[in-house]
Amino acid sequence: MTSEQTSAQLKSALNAVGARDSVTDIFFVACGGSYAQMLPVQYIVEREAKAIIGNAINAAEFKARAPKRLGKNSIVIALSHSGTTPETVEAVEIARAAGALTISLTHDLGSPLDQASEFTVSYFFSPMTMSPIHAAAVLTRLSFGILKIREGNTKVDDLDKGLAALPALVDNLISQNLGKIAEFAEAHKRESIIYTMASGPNYGPAYSFAICLLQEMQWVHSAAIHAGEYFHGPFEITDFDVPFIQLVGVGPSRPMDERALTFVKKYSQRVTVLDAKDLGVTSLPDTVAEYLAPLVFSPVLRVYADKLSEAKGHPLTVRRFMWKMEY
Amino acid sequence: MTSEQTSAQLKSALNAVGARDSVTDIFFVACGGSYAQMLPVQYIVEREAKAIIGNAINAAEFKARAPKRLGKNSIVIALSHSGTTPETVEAVEIARAAGALTISLTHDLGSPLDQASEFTVSYFFSPMTMSPIHAAAVLTRLSFGILKIREGNTKVDDLDKGLAALPALVDNLISQNLGKIAEFAEAHKRESIIYTMASGPNYGPAYSFAICLLQEMQWVHSAAIHAGEYFHGPFEITDFDVPFIQLVGVGPSRPMDERALTFVKKYSQRVTVLDAKDLGVTSLPDTVAEYLAPLVFSPVLRVYADKLSEAKGHPLTVRRFMWKMEY
Repeated sequence: MTSEQTSAQLKSALNAVGARDSVTDIFFVACGGSYAQMLPVQYIVEREAKAIIGNAINAAEFKARAPKRLGKNSIVIALSHSGTTPETVEAVEIARAAGALTISLTHDLGSPLDQASEFTVSYFFSPMTMSPIHAAAVLTRLSFGILKIREGNTKVDDLDKGLAALPALVDNLISQNLGKIAEFAEAHKRESIIYTMASGPNYGPAYSFAICLLQEMQWVHSAAIHAGEYFHGPFEITDFDVPFIQLVGVGPSRPMDERALTFVKKYSQRVTVLDAKDLGVTSLPDTVAEYLAPLVFSPVLRVYADKLSEAKGHPLTVRRFMWKMEY
Repeated sequence: MTSEQTSAQLKSALNAVGARDSVTDIFFVACGGSYAQMLPVQYIVEREAKAIIGNAINAAEFKARAPKRLGKNSIVIALSHSGTTPETVEAVEIARAAGALTISLTHDLGSPLDQASEFTVSYFFSPMTMSPIHAAAVLTRLSFGILKIREGNTKVDDLDKGLAALPALVDNLISQNLGKIAEFAEAHKRESIIYTMASGPNYGPAYSFAICLLQEMQWVHSAAIHAGEYFHGPFEITDFDVPFIQLVGVGPSRPMDERALTFVKKYSQRVTVLDAKDLGVTSLPDTVAEYLAPLVFSPVLRVYADKLSEAKGHPLTVRRFMWKMEY
């Protein structure tokens, strides 16, 4: 996958967005870790759009809900790495039959998802790095591109500047923090439960870490707690020995994160903090920094999982059920 | 709280809904267990509305996102039992200042939430029963009422019939299942983690049980797993000794629940199933049965929590942090 290919595919899709008579809704449809990648872009649409709706939804739930608003004024953006996730392929088929513009991201051109979709954008995959052609970046470019074409949003240039800075920023961050991450891994290798906590655009990476990295790939119990929900129930399970990984973002959701962090650090001795400010996110253009925080957290968190897997002797590739049977 | 009072308050609010020039969005805004009650009504709006958007969101996240769509064409429906939740009160103040129609549910007329809102509807509180004037029912009546006035939705009569049948249905269910529920409690009293699983309109009760009943009131680790997400990560933590409570609904989300149930029962020996079909939900009017399932699950689940608390000797009223300190 070259940068030129991805950009050309994006351009074709955006041309089709521009050619539509009307766009009222964007449905972001996927499952699991791919669904998690939709949450930050839904956040962007909700923060930035004047009129367009952003709705991130699990693909099977999308089929069940069968939203009446789905139709020729809708764009459905789907993501499946393999391009074979049956629920996601079916969701795109439903959307296309309803007259929606379908744009899919997949790593496999030629896959069922690619075939089901009017437009496909492929991306570069390397979970411990970040670039403008990683899936998360492509989704962000696509979302801001739609908002530019349909509503005159002007942040695309800042976004491109920010994305261009990410590869070096993330590489440096990871190399600087390897020692600290290895300490985390050693200290947590025998934990049976590790919570994650975040809010705003960073709830997506927290959810992904909980369900894909911890539950799926490490068989560690987990849940992603929304920092704004924490004080209304979940905080009662906080105790000196309960581990949390807290993401602290920038932008208007930061106060929620800070409030939760102050509390959780007071009552748990096992809090690992990833603060977007410490991770260089504030060096990115102000207008888009909050939206790029998840693109920094994701690869860094992947290194946390990688080191944890080494400390546990449980490779991230091991599964007991996934891909091994019919389900 | 009498039935007449609640109905009169609802009528006033719905008259105001009818008097608006345009209604494009309903924001359902609350925190924790109250937020959980918003998820089934958001589901209703998504399934039933021709054009109106339903958006359920944590009150602090609502403030952070500051959706540009919020304005004079919006209705903001808030819920706080005490009427004192600061985030929810602030969200209503923000909404009202933006020109939205604000309608709040609270148990305390005279509370800050009541004072902040243009319209307030009070409700009857008794967590192990259900009636047309319980909060969940009032939210459902309000949502269908809005859809009737603004879009001509015709299900209000069926809804009223269904709600009228719920008190006896739920009372009977609970008395018939007390032995089974006590067995669950004994069998789970030493579990340190219990997952819940559901989809569609029943994800709300599953989330509420996880964060309010288990995490908050029993200090038991938990997470609500969406049945459609289960196969894309969380299912890998399934094992013979991992406890799950699975809700199985009726309507179009049922196949998701059934697929997850088939799998989880095969690999865990600790699955507790609450099936809406076994709970009499199919005796309710077809057109609204799927929407009433959460109103049956919630009081029944509360009895599960109540019996668990007895078996653990940990009353549901005990807290270590909530209401005991500033946070």
